[in-house]
Amino acid sequence: MYREGFTTTVSAGALAERLCGRFRPGHFDGVATVVTKLLLQARPDIACFGEKDYQQLQIIRRVVRDLDIAIHIEGVPTVREDDGLALSSRNAYLSAEERRIAPALHRTLAAVRARVDAGASPQDAASWGGGELIQAGFTKLDYLEICDAETLAPLATADRPGRVCAAAWLGKTRLIDNVPLKGAP
Amino acid sequence: MYREGFTTTVSAGALAERLCGRFRPGHFDGVATVVTKLLLQARPDIACFGEKDYQQLQIIRRVVRDLDIAIHIEGVPTVREDDGLALSSRNAYLSAEERRIAPALHRTLAAVRARVDAGASPQDAASWGGGELIQAGFTKLDYLEICDAETLAPLATADRPGRVCAAAWLGKTRLIDNVPLKGAP
Repeated sequence: MYREGFTTTVSAGALAERLCGRFRPGHFDGVATVVTKLLLQARPDIACFGEKDYQQLQIIRRVVRDLDIAIHIEGVPTVREDDGLALSSRNAYLSAEERRIAPALHRTLAAVRARVDAGASPQDAASWGGGELIQAGFTKLDYLEICDAETLAPLATADRPGRVCAAAWLGKTRLIDNVPLKGAP
Repeated sequence: MYREGFTTTVSAGALAERLCGRFRPGHFDGVATVVTKLLLQARPDIACFGEKDYQQLQIIRRVVRDLDIAIHIEGVPTVREDDGLALSSRNAYLSAEERRIAPALHRTLAAVRARVDAGASPQDAASWGGGELIQAGFTKLDYLEICDAETLAPLATADRPGRVCAAAWLGKTRLIDNVPLKGAP
C-alpha cells in the first residue's frame, strides 16, 4: 500500500481535529490518506462506510467532495445488539460487568437527543448526558458533544442538522457511538 | 474549484519543505491540492509539467504515485532564450540591466554541473556557484543546491541522479532554474 519513498498526506483539516481527533492526533490524516488510495486504486461507483464511525464517514465525504473523486459515498446505519449496543470488534474486550454497563452509551445518547428535541440547549443536554454515563458506570468520558452533522463543529442551538456523538471508557476499552438529532430542520 | 466548506489539503511532506519550500511555506501544499483536483476532474491519460518548476514536477510525481492516481506525469524540458535564460512570465519584470545579468543563472548552474562532473564535491561546487551569481550581479541568493533528483534531499556525493537547483533575486524579481547532473549513474 505504501511504496518506497512514500511522503504524501491527505488531511481533512479542521474536520480531523474535532471530537475523536482531539484524542487521536494524526489518526484521521492516516485514514483520509489510505482511504483516498483505496478509492483511487479500486475506483468503484459507490463506497459504503458505517455511521458508527461518524467522524470518519464525514471526513471521507469531505475529502471525496474536495478532491473531486468521482465516487458516491454511502453512509450505512449502525447495526446494534438488542439492548442497543453498537456492534464493534472492541465489544469482545468488555468484561461481563462492563458489557452490562455498555448499552448505557446508546441509551444516554438517545435521551440527550430527546432532551434537545424537547427544547433543551445542546450544552445543557450534553453536560447532563456526561453525568449519566459516569453514573451508569463508565470510568472516563472523552467527550459527549452535539455537533453540526456536516462540519462537526459544536452546535450552540439545534437550528440545523446535528449529531450527538460520544466517546467513553469502560476500564481499558474505549467505546464510541452517535445518533442524529431528530428535531433539526 | 473550491466548493463551500472546503477543508482538504494534499501535502507531499518533506518534499514540499525543501528548496523553494523553505522560502514559500504552504505554497506546495496548495499546488499539490489543486493539481490533485485538476487531475481527478479531467482524468487524462498523460499530464505534462515543465522541468523549470522542478520541485513542483517532483511533488506532482510523488503525489500521483503515492495516491495511486492512474495518470502518467511527463516532465517537459525547459525552453530557453538564445542566451540560456529560461522562459518565464517573470522575465517581463526585469529591467534592461537585469535582463543582461539574468542569463548568468543558467550559465552558473551549467558551470556548477561541469565542476561536479569533473569531480568537485557538491558542497564546494554549490558555494562556488553562489559566489558567481552574486558577482554576476544577482542581488540575493535564496539557495543554490545540488540535490537528489527524486527526493530533493541535499547530495553529499554525486553518486546518484542529481539536480542543480537555484533561486536568486534580481532586484524585486525572483528567478529559478535547474539543470541535471550529467555524471550521475
